[in-house]
Amino acid sequence: MIERIAILGTGLLGTSVGLALRAAGYRGAITGWNRSVEHAQVAEQMGAVDSVSMDAMEAARAAQVILLAVPIYATLDFMEKLAPTLGSEHLVTDVGSTKRIISEAGARLFNTPERAAFLPGHPMAGKERGGAELGDANLFRGTVWLFTDDPNAKRSPHSAALVKSWREWVAAMGSKAIDLDPARHDELVAWVSHLPQFTATALSALLESEVGAAPELKDVGGRALREMTRLGASPFSLWRDIAYTNTDAVERALLALEQRLAYLRENLRTPVLREEFEQANKFRRE
Amino acid sequence: MIERIAILGTGLLGTSVGLALRAAGYRGAITGWNRSVEHAQVAEQMGAVDSVSMDAMEAARAAQVILLAVPIYATLDFMEKLAPTLGSEHLVTDVGSTKRIISEAGARLFNTPERAAFLPGHPMAGKERGGAELGDANLFRGTVWLFTDDPNAKRSPHSAALVKSWREWVAAMGSKAIDLDPARHDELVAWVSHLPQFTATALSALLESEVGAAPELKDVGGRALREMTRLGASPFSLWRDIAYTNTDAVERALLALEQRLAYLRENLRTPVLREEFEQANKFRRE
Repeated sequence: MIERIAILGTGLLGTSVGLALRAAGYRGAITGWNRSVEHAQVAEQMGAVDSVSMDAMEAARAAQVILLAVPIYATLDFMEKLAPTLGSEHLVTDVGSTKRIISEAGARLFNTPERAAFLPGHPMAGKERGGAELGDANLFRGTVWLFTDDPNAKRSPHSAALVKSWREWVAAMGSKAIDLDPARHDELVAWVSHLPQFTATALSALLESEVGAAPELKDVGGRALREMTRLGASPFSLWRDIAYTNTDAVERALLALEQRLAYLRENLRTPVLREEFEQANKFRRE
Repeated sequence: MIERIAILGTGLLGTSVGLALRAAGYRGAITGWNRSVEHAQVAEQMGAVDSVSMDAMEAARAAQVILLAVPIYATLDFMEKLAPTLGSEHLVTDVGSTKRIISEAGARLFNTPERAAFLPGHPMAGKERGGAELGDANLFRGTVWLFTDDPNAKRSPHSAALVKSWREWVAAMGSKAIDLDPARHDELVAWVSHLPQFTATALSALLESEVGAAPELKDVGGRALREMTRLGASPFSLWRDIAYTNTDAVERALLALEQRLAYLRENLRTPVLREEFEQANKFRRE
């Protein structure tokens, strides 16, 4: 039933969605828009979109499904601008990494019978670097796509059907949908996504201070060091919005890790160290 | 010139050395000993050793090069027992992860013209799980093999030649030798190896406490979470000895990371966050 999709933001995620839709057999139109048009043209050359639009609002109005694949604050800006110009024949969905603020805006601006539907989404997929040229048709295969949909949304039958159809395309891209309350979402990703990222950033920044002057010594760390610092390459531009829109939960998670590291440090020569290793082993076994 | 090697300890590293020597063209004898003989037999079946010895001391006396591939305290025990029974026709070397204590024992017990040579070594290679069955002929390819040799060692010409020849075999296994002072070695590996491990352990143990009861939620974290907790599977038996023999340097590194995490936590909404990401990006760029 979906025949016209607009992807606003052809970075890594937007481009990968276009490629994954094509790989899953989607035959309709895909229009791409990007703040810098060169990146939309890269997505077009890769086959992720079949046309490039210079006007995001026009591309959105012409589509049935509008995928917002831009940073969180840019997503909120688009939501404000799109809500008055779209109608019950549209679905807007997003890929933002925090969902409380976006879901609140969705309830305020969308999801009435006259307005477009808004489905807050968050594919748990990415790479440590962004950009259309890294787009990958298999990026979502075997991953989880979180939705924080509003159970009280009052949608037109048409836009409700678009929601159902988009969920089917997400499954066709190889991703498993999990539905969560927005606040629970933000709490959960603080632990399993944001904490690992900020830990890798702190560890990489610390090691740059300690051994950065002797880069040949990085080889000494081998695979374990490379792995524990790979996310150190993540761009600030993406994580700034996450830090701003999930501050409390991230603070709690970071403080808990600081305390856990201190506990381990104080027990390097006591039986507690064994317990900590056993607890860690358990996390990896399940 | 090396024609008879004894590998004492056929775990992951000992077995991998045997396989890597064969792959590099070593044609001499390799005898394996292990505390539990079944694991030595696995190494034999894999072709890492061509005979299994039930008596480590006898195997050592019959060899020219004795590779100690057991945990650190077991290495120290072997050094005490081997020193009086070996002579200037032998070289003892090891793979222990900390080198200060082992190098001190080496200077005390070996490296006189009448005694065996002792060459403290530390291949920066491993897997998150141990065992002969994970032995891998390519484990050392592209890695670094640290040596903390004593520049004042007074060796017989014969055992000095064995040291030179062993270094050539290390290169043939695909590993690059780096020579370091023992104290500098322990300080360096505290940063680039022990800190990443203990961070992964603390992070995994914390996440087990926080989301362990809902294992389906681990999928949410995706690749980033898997990577940042892979080392959580590391066995306590290996890391206990490291924690005991490099306590001060590991404590300093852990405390520094706690402070860096707190700094990041206190600055989630300030320009400092950008600086931390840039510093982390720099570590990954070089």
